[in-house]
Amino acid sequence: MLINSINSDSTICALATAMGGAIGIIRVSGNRTIEIVNSIFTKNLNEAKPNTVHYGHIINEQGKIIDEVLISIFHAPHSYTGENSAEISCHGSQYILSTVLELLIKNGATLAKPGEFTQRAYLNGKIDLSQAEAVADLISSTTEATHNIAISQLKGHFSSELHILRDQLLHLTTLLELELDFSDHEELEFADRGELLEIARKIDKKITSLAQSFETGEALKKGVPVAIIGNTNVGKSTLLNKLLKEDRAIVSDIHGTTRDTIEDTVVINGVQFRFIDTAGIRQTEDKIEQIGIERTYMSIERAKIIIWLIDKTPSSFDIEDIKNRLKDKKLIIAFNKTDIPSSKEEIASFKHNEDKILTLPHRSVFISAKENLNVDLLEKVIYEAANIPEIKYNDVIVTSARHYESLIHAHTNLQRVIEGLSHGLSGDLISEDLRITLNDLSEITGGAITPQETLNNIFAHFCIGK
Amino acid sequence: MLINSINSDSTICALATAMGGAIGIIRVSGNRTIEIVNSIFTKNLNEAKPNTVHYGHIINEQGKIIDEVLISIFHAPHSYTGENSAEISCHGSQYILSTVLELLIKNGATLAKPGEFTQRAYLNGKIDLSQAEAVADLISSTTEATHNIAISQLKGHFSSELHILRDQLLHLTTLLELELDFSDHEELEFADRGELLEIARKIDKKITSLAQSFETGEALKKGVPVAIIGNTNVGKSTLLNKLLKEDRAIVSDIHGTTRDTIEDTVVINGVQFRFIDTAGIRQTEDKIEQIGIERTYMSIERAKIIIWLIDKTPSSFDIEDIKNRLKDKKLIIAFNKTDIPSSKEEIASFKHNEDKILTLPHRSVFISAKENLNVDLLEKVIYEAANIPEIKYNDVIVTSARHYESLIHAHTNLQRVIEGLSHGLSGDLISEDLRITLNDLSEITGGAITPQETLNNIFAHFCIGK
Repeated sequence: MLINSINSDSTICALATAMGGAIGIIRVSGNRTIEIVNSIFTKNLNEAKPNTVHYGHIINEQGKIIDEVLISIFHAPHSYTGENSAEISCHGSQYILSTVLELLIKNGATLAKPGEFTQRAYLNGKIDLSQAEAVADLISSTTEATHNIAISQLKGHFSSELHILRDQLLHLTTLLELELDFSDHEELEFADRGELLEIARKIDKKITSLAQSFETGEALKKGVPVAIIGNTNVGKSTLLNKLLKEDRAIVSDIHGTTRDTIEDTVVINGVQFRFIDTAGIRQTEDKIEQIGIERTYMSIERAKIIIWLIDKTPSSFDIEDIKNRLKDKKLIIAFNKTDIPSSKEEIASFKHNEDKILTLPHRSVFISAKENLNVDLLEKVIYEAANIPEIKYNDVIVTSARHYESLIHAHTNLQRVIEGLSHGLSGDLISEDLRITLNDLSEITGGAITPQETLNNIFAHFCIGK
Repeated sequence: MLINSINSDSTICALATAMGGAIGIIRVSGNRTIEIVNSIFTKNLNEAKPNTVHYGHIINEQGKIIDEVLISIFHAPHSYTGENSAEISCHGSQYILSTVLELLIKNGATLAKPGEFTQRAYLNGKIDLSQAEAVADLISSTTEATHNIAISQLKGHFSSELHILRDQLLHLTTLLELELDFSDHEELEFADRGELLEIARKIDKKITSLAQSFETGEALKKGVPVAIIGNTNVGKSTLLNKLLKEDRAIVSDIHGTTRDTIEDTVVINGVQFRFIDTAGIRQTEDKIEQIGIERTYMSIERAKIIIWLIDKTPSSFDIEDIKNRLKDKKLIIAFNKTDIPSSKEEIASFKHNEDKILTLPHRSVFISAKENLNVDLLEKVIYEAANIPEIKYNDVIVTSARHYESLIHAHTNLQRVIEGLSHGLSGDLISEDLRITLNDLSEITGGAITPQETLNNIFAHFCIGK
């Protein structure tokens, strides 16, 4: 898996935890780890056994104590990066953490670039490129589904599926080359073109199915976009608040959790739903009607699922217009305010107005957002509308646009192979397309020559310290 | 130091790092640590040596991998809490961290209360109460000065000064009791009252000096409050921006650093200066004059140092009024816009208007905030105005209001001892005041019987996970 040896001689360091906790961890990795750490630590770690923890003090040049710390020592190749490494567990003070980093740098370490620890793990052959990318996905996973996919990818399930596909492509190449080499010897039997075609189609089917999983993967990773539309005062904000008010995870009580980023996100059955532009929708009540309608159209445009919330007041939307905008989006009609008894007149008026809405393909739910009636049923309907296949543990789902692109390229090139085989093209021409297909798949795990630019792009999305 | 043994049998767990980093550390401490961790870890840690790190997987009840982790094992009493402990180093995903905590709780751990790890360290006699409080100060330290004080306190320098004072008080008590017991035996020689008085005064001097250090300690801990006042458009915002634009520490580049909290804080020579209500001052330009002046008065009220920024336009303040409000606050007059050449008329008008200001006791600096001229000199003047004694490494500075209060009580009671000794009061009456003084000092380190309420108050200010 080791594709090049540009692995730098430098020893890198970085804060691996977020600022603001009780503890802050500084990671150090590289040849000079022990030597550099020794120069700021009250103990000499030359004889320290690997995978041991050492209590002592970080001191500066003047011998002043900067912190009481625990240092864990890891020896190459049995570390995350595959290099000699140390993890310094400090008190989580901004002053301490920046001072310890400064001391490490003064003594010869350099500040790590984003993802550089993982990049070194990749360059040292500890993990392949798709596994490295899974690390970033794992860290940013907030739901069971995204976590399952990232863990599966990190444990190499995607890599091994790709490995099998590559083996099959190599086998196909060998059969073709056999055909080429011995085509004069009529007495020898080769796999006939029909057999080769079948193998190629089987491989293509698998590649296509992986590529198709990207739709699910992307929805899970970014969250399924949902829009709540409806008249002003129909209860959109109340409904959103009820949907958001699920049991918060334990961590949300912990100092440092940023609520902002999860504010308009609801996790249903381990899948994340993202309520788009809801801030805008909330504001419509203060704006003139036209802006409200424009916002609604924009929400619909960006959503995969539309919740149309209605009550007994006539809809202020042009239903034909909405219909045209729905396309293949899923529509859920939620009848709100079911807790308020209706007069005969209201029911008649409601029926008159809403009959038109009901001509649209939809699923309907009767709720009271205010009284929290049937909101759980609505959640179930939202989940079903998302049509996310159940992600089983170890399932391989493509979540990276880079992987998707490579799979599509592989599919396109394999289509040419299949055409060539069908139309009796000569083996050497087909072989060239097979070689390109192999290369497309290798790009995913980084087994082929991966350009530095691609590596830079991948690791730039990591946080520092990983 | 062990004052009571209410140390619970429960095994506690908590996230010890902030959310949002590459790594998240979950701490576990208590009798059942190894057993509970074993139940969710792919390796059995029963035979694990203390201070060793173990690679493996956290799995749930269904055997599903939640994360690839490193677990450090610590054995009682050689751990932070003095109990069996573990630190689980996970990927910093919100889903992973909450799931691991949930699994630990399912298997018998309880979620730690804020500061509970440190409270256990105190209850197990690993540190005294003032050291425990230093842990919280250390974590929140953002400057060299606050860091020095917290480290000194954590390393027990304050505790040992208190220990010496208590020894001296005990010695005084012994001498008094000797006087009591043998007062009939005229042949025996005792320390005379004058000698006792001298000892008491020496102790009181030390206690008073510790108490006095609280002013410095509080200024350092909370930041020295500074107000920038002046006419609209005199350049207050520009100056503040220039003051804020010092080299940011390395950590500020790191994901998760909250700029908000340091926005209006400037560190000069390792001391933090807090620019109060500057947002308000910024807004005055949009408001009517009277509100601007009211805001200025409020800023002056809350500040210790006033920077009065003036240019060649006449001051819009009533100088006599400002004068009355200054009291013992330090005034710095900064002449801004020195980069713009002045006409003769301007200089004349300026002189006429500002002569009155210059009658106030002040230091003056000529600057150009816009061109960043002499802003470094202004910083120097601000630092000098704060009159913070240089905090040397190992200096004992009182930063806790609780400690200050105890010291003041001790001083008051010792004053009664001194009076008693001066006025020839009987030894047993004086002994009682000595006993109370001793108790006052013991409260600081928790050597006396510390009420649970006091402990709760102290540890409630900690973050969870420490």
